[in-house]
Amino acid sequence: VILEEGDVVVISQKIISKAEKRVRKATTITPSKKAERIAQQTGKDSKIVELILNETEEPVKIGIGVLLVKDKRGFTCINAGIDRSNVEGEGSFALLPENPDASAEKCRRELKRLTEKNVAVIICDTYSRPFRRGQVNFAIGISGINPFKDYRGKSDLFGKILKVKNVAIVDEIAAAAELLMGQGKEAKPVIVFKGLGEVVDFRGGTATKELYIPHEDDLFKNSL
Amino acid sequence: VILEEGDVVVISQKIISKAEKRVRKATTITPSKKAERIAQQTGKDSKIVELILNETEEPVKIGIGVLLVKDKRGFTCINAGIDRSNVEGEGSFALLPENPDASAEKCRRELKRLTEKNVAVIICDTYSRPFRRGQVNFAIGISGINPFKDYRGKSDLFGKILKVKNVAIVDEIAAAAELLMGQGKEAKPVIVFKGLGEVVDFRGGTATKELYIPHEDDLFKNSL
Repeated sequence: VILEEGDVVVISQKIISKAEKRVRKATTITPSKKAERIAQQTGKDSKIVELILNETEEPVKIGIGVLLVKDKRGFTCINAGIDRSNVEGEGSFALLPENPDASAEKCRRELKRLTEKNVAVIICDTYSRPFRRGQVNFAIGISGINPFKDYRGKSDLFGKILKVKNVAIVDEIAAAAELLMGQGKEAKPVIVFKGLGEVVDFRGGTATKELYIPHEDDLFKNSL
Repeated sequence: VILEEGDVVVISQKIISKAEKRVRKATTITPSKKAERIAQQTGKDSKIVELILNETEEPVKIGIGVLLVKDKRGFTCINAGIDRSNVEGEGSFALLPENPDASAEKCRRELKRLTEKNVAVIICDTYSRPFRRGQVNFAIGISGINPFKDYRGKSDLFGKILKVKNVAIVDEIAAAAELLMGQGKEAKPVIVFKGLGEVVDFRGGTATKELYIPHEDDLFKNSL
């Protein structure tokens, strides 16, 4: 693939985590008392619980075999995004990058240095969602791209002003990338999108934080 | 576009709803007592509340300006998917298709009759999500496609058996389609995907119901 100005480069979290040495061997972990207690409640391994707690803000919600957490980056997800798939070695687990936006920024700058092209970078990972079965890919780190395509204040086909539409375009690009990446043995951790210039805003900042809704503003609060 | 065997045709809910005459003028609606009461609690128009209640299973959760409902199809969403964008006429609102899977099936059969090609059909619509800001496109009706790409029991790059990965591939295809559809004046309500044969399973059934998690199985229950 030849990179061109305005390409959007989507990179799997797993290879970023490996490159940043965010892989832990469970056997080297000493679980805390709290991790031991939560392990008993969930049926999870206490060493994995310890890994999750290290990445997590309080409080932690406990389900069967899962911990639902808001991680220290502000991202609400199951098991703090820690898993073992496509990580080499028995008992090895990949943690999310320490700061996925910074990782995306670093990739973007390095791609610029190597190719002299301005591209956007999205780091992605698959997650379970409320209400719906199955996982989908989400953006967990971004650089050089506005996370939203905001239609509010613009008009529809019939001249009505749109009041609500604000599409999380980076999540949709991440989902589209997953169709090619796969989750098994595909070994395609990087997908390049071309021709998205009319759809995305490259002037955007570098903050997935904008994607995270404070609890008090969440339309779904008290709904589960 | 020439349709070929194995194409995936993604169609916007809005044009299906219009074709099926699922458009209502708010002025023709007589709100019930209950709708009046909920309108007061939410600050919504009582006639729109009445439209939403007609599409909804109990109970209804009430937020500021929104009703979160499980609709009569089993789909949990805000305002029962009812909105006015790209619907002609002041005060006109589009309801979701009565049975979106049946609508998708009808499109698939008609495309087969017209082109003699077997394609899959996904009807899509954009929705807000818990925890994350912005809307994304979801599959709300499907035909001729398995909603999931299930990796469970298969192995990763290093021979580990995957235990959890079960990707909601129809939601990812819907999200990918939205990049081209847009939500404003784009007027591109149908997107055709080619070359997804290695990714999707065309032997699948016709039920988005499989995407809806019963509350007791929802990993996120009690989390909001």
